[in-house]
Amino acid sequence: MSKRPLILVSNDDGITAPGIRTLISVMNEIGDVVVVAPDGPQSGMGHAVTIDNILHCSKIKVDDGPQVEYKTSGTPADCIKIAVSEIMKRKPDLCVSGINHGSNSSINVIYSGTMSAAVEAGVEGIPAIGFSLLDYSWDANFEPLKAHIKKITLNVIENGLPEGVVLNVNFPKAETFKGVKVCRQARANWVEEFDKRKNPQGKTYYWLTGKFTNMDNGEDTDEWALANNYISMVPVQFDLTAHHFIQKLNSWNLD
Amino acid sequence: MSKRPLILVSNDDGITAPGIRTLISVMNEIGDVVVVAPDGPQSGMGHAVTIDNILHCSKIKVDDGPQVEYKTSGTPADCIKIAVSEIMKRKPDLCVSGINHGSNSSINVIYSGTMSAAVEAGVEGIPAIGFSLLDYSWDANFEPLKAHIKKITLNVIENGLPEGVVLNVNFPKAETFKGVKVCRQARANWVEEFDKRKNPQGKTYYWLTGKFTNMDNGEDTDEWALANNYISMVPVQFDLTAHHFIQKLNSWNLD
Repeated sequence: MSKRPLILVSNDDGITAPGIRTLISVMNEIGDVVVVAPDGPQSGMGHAVTIDNILHCSKIKVDDGPQVEYKTSGTPADCIKIAVSEIMKRKPDLCVSGINHGSNSSINVIYSGTMSAAVEAGVEGIPAIGFSLLDYSWDANFEPLKAHIKKITLNVIENGLPEGVVLNVNFPKAETFKGVKVCRQARANWVEEFDKRKNPQGKTYYWLTGKFTNMDNGEDTDEWALANNYISMVPVQFDLTAHHFIQKLNSWNLD
Repeated sequence: MSKRPLILVSNDDGITAPGIRTLISVMNEIGDVVVVAPDGPQSGMGHAVTIDNILHCSKIKVDDGPQVEYKTSGTPADCIKIAVSEIMKRKPDLCVSGINHGSNSSINVIYSGTMSAAVEAGVEGIPAIGFSLLDYSWDANFEPLKAHIKKITLNVIENGLPEGVVLNVNFPKAETFKGVKVCRQARANWVEEFDKRKNPQGKTYYWLTGKFTNMDNGEDTDEWALANNYISMVPVQFDLTAHHFIQKLNSWNLD
């Protein structure tokens, strides 16, 4: 690519989150940056899109960087749709999402707003990467990630990604990393523990809480990599077909 | 299975939608039914979960059937979590979601609240099926679907599903069907067309609209099956790892 790539940046923690501000600063070194991100937190939104409500979208200036920025009232997937359809003059060469404040490894990928932005870009034929740090705090230290994010991004621009594949990159909470490990998604789930309370009028309500449970001992998983201080990189696809089960299903008596 | 199976029913159109009422009536013929469904429409919610807000959940009686029913203020994925964790005495033998008023074929699966309920059940180790009808109208005719839904459900109870796989079943809008076709997810996307308007105060806002674009000519796809009056059945997995790309990624210069 001879000219500077056009890069779309989004996230799910909202446009002012330190994670996306870090990501923007790295992308400004690589290309021309357009930011389209939610105006507030959209964590846990999965691949939600706004069909029963209106969307607001307006230009905003958050810092003195060269990037162009828009905030929207929508979900991360909405942000990508409106960026591509309404805001950007041409299809971006790359979409990056994050840096998420918190893990999107393993099964978290299906609940993740960060990854939904990357997946939405992938669906629209744009090479895409989601970045996340295993630290939920607002003032997490993103500095050690910057060189790695730049290197991974340049690799994607240089090598491309196959159609239907986006990258899910997670960083352990650390000052230094052992390197990048290409992984598969660990088999895991959340064991829910609802916190049951009464409101001031005596009516019961619930808070969703839960405990992440890794059921996978594989050393080729993202959970293993992160626990061993590697940066995990999982290629993620959105053809959800369980091809291995098609033959068996054809033997069922369905008619 | 000698005793009657315990069946969890949910959806994304809300607990009073004709689609779920039809599904409940079929499931009552098969097992003991517990319904936990949203108190209003949650279409397009993807795999969203409610982490920044409280959940309400209360018992409700909608009709004279033998099922036990709860409505919640949450998303379809929330419904499954609260059903398994708080409401049901034991893990259900099966979870069915739908019948959705509208298609969840092809790429729609990633935006689908109906399928997120089925996938969430799958993540929790419960065999699960999402059912959808390619008719968005509230008074769609669900009658022709009932015998097929019963047969598919009995097959799942009899044969089980492998760990990590749920079924995505779509019905064409028709009085009769050519049969069930086991399919892969067609490669498709939505081409967005935002409807840009001004509010009474002159501020711009948007409605998300779009046109579904099938980019897949395969006759083994759900889109082909539905266009040819077959019921489509796609086995869906939530290990999103693009295993075919791992070897190539390992050749990148990342350290």
